[in-house]
Amino acid sequence: MGTSLPRTTLLLNWYANPYHTPIFVGKALGYYEQAGINLAILETTDPSDVTEIVGTNRVDIGLKAMVHCYAARDRNYPIKSIGTLLDEPPTGLIFLKSSNIKTFADVKGKRIGYVGEFGKIMVDDLAKQAGIASSDYETVRVGMNVADAISRDIVDTGIGIGCFQQVELEHLTGEETGMLRIDELAGLGCCCFCSVLYIVNEKTIAEKPEMLTNFMQATQRATAYTLENPEKAFDILCNKMPRLKTDLYHKIFINSLPYFSRDLKNVARDWNKVGRYAAQLGITPEDHDPENCYTNAFVPEQAYASMPPVSETAQAA
Amino acid sequence: MGTSLPRTTLLLNWYANPYHTPIFVGKALGYYEQAGINLAILETTDPSDVTEIVGTNRVDIGLKAMVHCYAARDRNYPIKSIGTLLDEPPTGLIFLKSSNIKTFADVKGKRIGYVGEFGKIMVDDLAKQAGIASSDYETVRVGMNVADAISRDIVDTGIGIGCFQQVELEHLTGEETGMLRIDELAGLGCCCFCSVLYIVNEKTIAEKPEMLTNFMQATQRATAYTLENPEKAFDILCNKMPRLKTDLYHKIFINSLPYFSRDLKNVARDWNKVGRYAAQLGITPEDHDPENCYTNAFVPEQAYASMPPVSETAQAA
Repeated sequence: MGTSLPRTTLLLNWYANPYHTPIFVGKALGYYEQAGINLAILETTDPSDVTEIVGTNRVDIGLKAMVHCYAARDRNYPIKSIGTLLDEPPTGLIFLKSSNIKTFADVKGKRIGYVGEFGKIMVDDLAKQAGIASSDYETVRVGMNVADAISRDIVDTGIGIGCFQQVELEHLTGEETGMLRIDELAGLGCCCFCSVLYIVNEKTIAEKPEMLTNFMQATQRATAYTLENPEKAFDILCNKMPRLKTDLYHKIFINSLPYFSRDLKNVARDWNKVGRYAAQLGITPEDHDPENCYTNAFVPEQAYASMPPVSETAQAA
Repeated sequence: MGTSLPRTTLLLNWYANPYHTPIFVGKALGYYEQAGINLAILETTDPSDVTEIVGTNRVDIGLKAMVHCYAARDRNYPIKSIGTLLDEPPTGLIFLKSSNIKTFADVKGKRIGYVGEFGKIMVDDLAKQAGIASSDYETVRVGMNVADAISRDIVDTGIGIGCFQQVELEHLTGEETGMLRIDELAGLGCCCFCSVLYIVNEKTIAEKPEMLTNFMQATQRATAYTLENPEKAFDILCNKMPRLKTDLYHKIFINSLPYFSRDLKNVARDWNKVGRYAAQLGITPEDHDPENCYTNAFVPEQAYASMPPVSETAQAA
């Protein structure tokens, strides 16, 4: 099964979970193999490690968000997004209703969990905009494990994704939960800063452009399969990763379905918006050029339904 | 927290699980950081990808078994083991007692799960030695997910570790389980071929010898902590990886405790034995030299108790 091909490495943004389903479908159904790619899917135990590992070109492809691309380039890691996996999943401060958090002002005296360094910058900026002194709340780095941290009373609230950590928190505690959406708090008008992107080093773009074209085409085919056959796709994921075969992960999968990008494209409007936000947060310079951060050159122009099967293309190439 | 140091990447042999506890303890308690190492712990979704990724030097350190080192060198991947994590965990064909498998002869007409290509070679060799024709059984590649594969009736039996997959199978099915130990079947007299080793590319040995010394010293310290404070160590693992906080993984942890290598050393006797076995299986040439495959140069000479704290050493370096 393609073991003679050298491996193309893909580093997920966290542990393998339901919103990575299209990638596992593409591998299990042989779409990557038919596109000439022997894909090795790696997980990270710390989301904050991914940018540097892609930035130093130690893996071929990674998953990360827009703000990390801006920050990476500011640190001279030549990272570019080549497409979108998860498009604007609702993100914000999640909490148990019993915590009595109703508006952002209620975080006074509370412990707030954040994912990594930019999450902390965001929380501090939100507080500043809301006129809350930094001495009036505490921040705790919890990675993506905010549901666990709330359920263990390590934090009162923290940043999470609606279709993942909020579902998880409800499941863990059996209590009602709520979310203050960051896009509303920050006046962004969208959750694009949380979109999960396929990122690569510019060196990979220069050296392996055909591989990236084939990768995105196989990924589009796998995404289409996932959207058209959700339950079968989830079964494929679980057969590869049996530890995901639980009610919780099934619920997370169903809740993630609306957010899989259908055309996989980077959205210029979102990059512009997040660029302005990142500049406001001091993560990227004022004179940044969003177009340095992404390219849609590898995303198939046509939707999958009207495309020839990947296998034919791969054979023709 | 050490984020200014470049990351040292470590690729686990599978998903993060209880027998990786010492590595997570070393990271969480700052032992690696004090040794000057900013450790990024990565997981693989396919155990068969690890050898090539270490062999092409895309990660600094990996985890894998002896037979993979022999096979890697035979394929011109310059891999060496620099120490032992898990020492001779009992390994064999696991099954439900209800399957009526009692001796190896009972695999006739059965479906046998194996991990990767060398597992298949081993199963076929065992059958040959036992005079069972290859048409009398079926082999199915199931990776490390043999417990899941048995519980889903994909296979009747398959290769697994006693302290992991056998515990898992019992937990998943609630039935009594059994194991035919491979060491007994193959006349090896030990389960050393299943020991989990810290492996590196020779390039890393040449370029970063101090890092490897510091890594093994911090790892020894973390292993000592794990053995002396098992429940605290398991809590540390679970706080980092909340999805492991289940009765099953706790049981696997307790069952793995006896097999953590205490001195982390490579054992010459085991390498010789596995070398002969690998030659018999055609995985390595008859004239292989086991000493090419490992070095104890980076393992601290003294047991941890009598060593200076890593921090002092790191500061002195």
